[in-house]
Amino acid sequence: MWILRINMSDLSYKLEDLPEKYKLLYGRALTSQMVYDEVPPLCHALGTNNKLVFSSGVVTGTAAPTSARISVGGKSPLTGGIKEANAGTAWGQDLAKMKIRALVVEGQQVKKDKYWGALIKWDDAAGKPVVEFFEATEHAGKDVYEVYPKVFEKFGEKVSIASIGTAGELGYGNSGIVFNDMARRPSRYAGRGGLGAVMASKRLKFLVLDSKGSPGIEMVDKALFDEGRKKLIDAIRSHPISQPKGGLNSYGTAVLVNILNEAGGLPTRNFSAGRFEGAAKTSGEAIFETNKERMGKDIYNHACSPGCIIQCSNTYYNPDQTEATSCIEYESTWALGANLGVDNLDDIATMVQLCNAYGLDTIETGATLGVAMEGGLLEFSDSKGAIQMIHEMGQGTALGRTLGGGTEVTGKIYGVRRVPAVKGQGMPAYEPRAVKGIGITYATTTMGADHTAGYTICPEILGVSGKLDPLSPEGKAALSRAFQATTAFIDSCGHCLFIAFPILDIASGFEGMIQECNGVLGTNWNADDIVAYGATTLKVERKFNEAAGIGKEADRIPEFMMVEPLPPHNQVFDIPDAALDSVYQDL
Amino acid sequence: MWILRINMSDLSYKLEDLPEKYKLLYGRALTSQMVYDEVPPLCHALGTNNKLVFSSGVVTGTAAPTSARISVGGKSPLTGGIKEANAGTAWGQDLAKMKIRALVVEGQQVKKDKYWGALIKWDDAAGKPVVEFFEATEHAGKDVYEVYPKVFEKFGEKVSIASIGTAGELGYGNSGIVFNDMARRPSRYAGRGGLGAVMASKRLKFLVLDSKGSPGIEMVDKALFDEGRKKLIDAIRSHPISQPKGGLNSYGTAVLVNILNEAGGLPTRNFSAGRFEGAAKTSGEAIFETNKERMGKDIYNHACSPGCIIQCSNTYYNPDQTEATSCIEYESTWALGANLGVDNLDDIATMVQLCNAYGLDTIETGATLGVAMEGGLLEFSDSKGAIQMIHEMGQGTALGRTLGGGTEVTGKIYGVRRVPAVKGQGMPAYEPRAVKGIGITYATTTMGADHTAGYTICPEILGVSGKLDPLSPEGKAALSRAFQATTAFIDSCGHCLFIAFPILDIASGFEGMIQECNGVLGTNWNADDIVAYGATTLKVERKFNEAAGIGKEADRIPEFMMVEPLPPHNQVFDIPDAALDSVYQDL
Repeated sequence: MWILRINMSDLSYKLEDLPEKYKLLYGRALTSQMVYDEVPPLCHALGTNNKLVFSSGVVTGTAAPTSARISVGGKSPLTGGIKEANAGTAWGQDLAKMKIRALVVEGQQVKKDKYWGALIKWDDAAGKPVVEFFEATEHAGKDVYEVYPKVFEKFGEKVSIASIGTAGELGYGNSGIVFNDMARRPSRYAGRGGLGAVMASKRLKFLVLDSKGSPGIEMVDKALFDEGRKKLIDAIRSHPISQPKGGLNSYGTAVLVNILNEAGGLPTRNFSAGRFEGAAKTSGEAIFETNKERMGKDIYNHACSPGCIIQCSNTYYNPDQTEATSCIEYESTWALGANLGVDNLDDIATMVQLCNAYGLDTIETGATLGVAMEGGLLEFSDSKGAIQMIHEMGQGTALGRTLGGGTEVTGKIYGVRRVPAVKGQGMPAYEPRAVKGIGITYATTTMGADHTAGYTICPEILGVSGKLDPLSPEGKAALSRAFQATTAFIDSCGHCLFIAFPILDIASGFEGMIQECNGVLGTNWNADDIVAYGATTLKVERKFNEAAGIGKEADRIPEFMMVEPLPPHNQVFDIPDAALDSVYQDL
Repeated sequence: MWILRINMSDLSYKLEDLPEKYKLLYGRALTSQMVYDEVPPLCHALGTNNKLVFSSGVVTGTAAPTSARISVGGKSPLTGGIKEANAGTAWGQDLAKMKIRALVVEGQQVKKDKYWGALIKWDDAAGKPVVEFFEATEHAGKDVYEVYPKVFEKFGEKVSIASIGTAGELGYGNSGIVFNDMARRPSRYAGRGGLGAVMASKRLKFLVLDSKGSPGIEMVDKALFDEGRKKLIDAIRSHPISQPKGGLNSYGTAVLVNILNEAGGLPTRNFSAGRFEGAAKTSGEAIFETNKERMGKDIYNHACSPGCIIQCSNTYYNPDQTEATSCIEYESTWALGANLGVDNLDDIATMVQLCNAYGLDTIETGATLGVAMEGGLLEFSDSKGAIQMIHEMGQGTALGRTLGGGTEVTGKIYGVRRVPAVKGQGMPAYEPRAVKGIGITYATTTMGADHTAGYTICPEILGVSGKLDPLSPEGKAALSRAFQATTAFIDSCGHCLFIAFPILDIASGFEGMIQECNGVLGTNWNADDIVAYGATTLKVERKFNEAAGIGKEADRIPEFMMVEPLPPHNQVFDIPDAALDSVYQDL
């Protein structure tokens, strides 16, 4: 196993043996540890001292179900703290198969007149990966949907591509790194926290992986892995949320729209209410029904990446049966729907597609536009105006650049006081006042407001792993802590977070996940070990943030949510500071 | 003595007896203590929980020379931390004469359709000040130079007026509170840190003071005060910097341009060099000579406020002998001159006047435009383009609003890595790499990058209180600490900071300042006591900042200054973190 370092200062690369200390670190555990070890916490996120670290999970590249994840780490230009963003894509599998435990992009081109790509391919004769640099300037400033086919044409349809859009090139805090899905669409984003701008700041436009001939994943105990894999597959296939034609496969993540709306926790019109009268029109069910009407048949969702048996990615079709976009996630239909008072699915699909094409994170975009509407730049529900603003962002007009700075920056510039953000990152699709545990996650995670960092929605809303009252503050700090630690492990093992539904409810599924890892690594982990593994990652991230000046005072929900009661439950966010502080103090 | 509270939520007011605990607190000492006591550190700076506190100094309103200062405190929308900004104006004297130790503006109007003014006048019959509110909506959105004459017309020429420009109304981090000078110009700014936006957020447009009939300042020991006053006057009149027709009276603060340029510490073109080839053309000497040529005689400077015997404020005249602006400070001619590569004094004067007219801080404006030029928005030296950008700021265009967010926000939005700011506030006119002590002040002061917070330029450049090598890091942390503490006292006693030149060099002047205070207060302070008084204020400010999430990691100079050597001395900023941390640890 190697660490592959690409130095953009002089377009060179270096293959290093994996140090012993990183032996058991994969995915987020490794990206966060390496960022902590190598990136000065107070460096400029777009300067030469920041690094991008890519690492796949423990089981990524194996036949483990739903495990083609790639973690990307670095210092975030959005939050100023550490960032791990991940995506589902064959790219993660290709990296792992070439035995590259971590790909580190460091340095930066001093001259800003060119963009570059790096092709990383398996050299069978040498028995190791090699890197070839190529100029990519001609592909800058363009829709990534135009660009990807050309790069596939150049390198072949079997490669995997990571890239950035104009949002990254413009240096936005709202800019992601995009990976191709199974249909070679540039649609799978490591979206949050502005890592696209970090990649662009190095003048790196593409990371192309060609794993042909590569050795694949070695395992210490294949039988144990297979046993675990089977248990996990069974669990996924038998849980109502993750099973074929179940909630996710039928309606995608957007199945949550009606559920959160019913719970009064669907943030509406820049977090001024918890229910949206147009929710049903923007739901997963509406996507399914619209597709059925337009295509004349039931269309179930597809996998974003090879080996996924949950298959939650939808395609949304136009009336003329052409593809509008793929995919509309829950967070996207919320961000660009309820949060803006927009109930028109076609307009939401247009906005999602534009975000993908420009390299923008849909959550940050929607949260930003909500603040812009609050600040009087646009009326709520003006979806055509919102589409125009996304164009301005992608094209880098004066207004577009402000919006590209993200939710908090936009609030600052337009003097808006109701700004739903933590540590500079816009809030996702769950209202802290209506779902207290997720609010604790938003406040305390090292990532800035992020639902995936500790998805307490499982017990608070979905009844997965038991059922808790979402409005009650009781025990929620401990709940968030447990979810955050477990999540940090899942983000490291390589499975998609959505295996959480079956493994939380079905004990053998959870056991299976651990057996898979033990099979690959030869470890003897139990449930306590994986929580400890995750907690170690969280502590490292926390240390980085503290050294970057982001301490516990940043672990807070914005003032307006503590004083404005949210309809329909008329609750404020009432978690005491001491409880918020306990999340990491007691880790 | 009273605390007068104006509550903008319901346009009411309340006169409270001064609590015993505030008995000896004046000026910055009181504004910072009250902000600490009453403002939640994590509140939104433009929300209802922030407060503005105005307080004059110990000797303000007496016959003490050069002592008409007013401190304004609150939570800064620019830095997110505590802010004290002060100005020289009769307004401070009027407040003190009405026995109002602190004027606190709290709450805010919920409806945003109107602006209000408050007239505070002495009611002789009642023996106390009273407040009358008046609607001021008609004056919003206008050049303050148009507005002031109308307000003077309404209330009489003897009143004093505090107000805000469009920058404040637009909610900018770059927005000041303006007070009238002796010619009733709206030109004396408590400029830094965005307190104008705080005032505007409360929908308060004017604070008009009419002190007619007020009792004035009581003194415990008038003879002692008079003795001290005489010593201080003698010192001011005999020091080459502060004496009549001396450096400040002849050339204003802009006398520093050539001095700093010679020292290689005049930040040029967004802090990329320490010398500017056009420096001489933008200097105080050039202002004097240009005026002489245009007006046909030597024109010495005038006082900004009653009782000032230093008289450093210039007026700059157009070729047709009309007034271009008053005044062009050193920091302004630098910010809008060398820092932008501009050497045209007429254009600089135009920019200064526009900043005053729109309510912008000249330092933050220049630092922001430097970053905008670095980011490619404009060529360096394009003064006409810079003028246009200031118009955009004042008028609130999309680009203007971004720039109004200040140096750091602009850098973030335009992906600029060379951003000269600390704690979100743009750096003033002295290069940290060429003058190490002032860099320590920038890094560590509670205020964000601020030269006035600990003006080590005295020994490092001017040879006042001895002469130190500006390039040497030796002993500079202790130096900055001593200057910061003494400054906090001076900002509380009511004298202008410029008495520092004579009192540092002339022992009897220093003694005189303390005697004045002891005469007013009946205290028995010595030199140690006043340093301790200042240190107490710094500690309170520090505690506020820490609770607002601004800890020692924010006490740092931007990365680029630690890696890019600055011509002509080719020095980096090489003060170790431990030395920076020692400034407050050892306070």
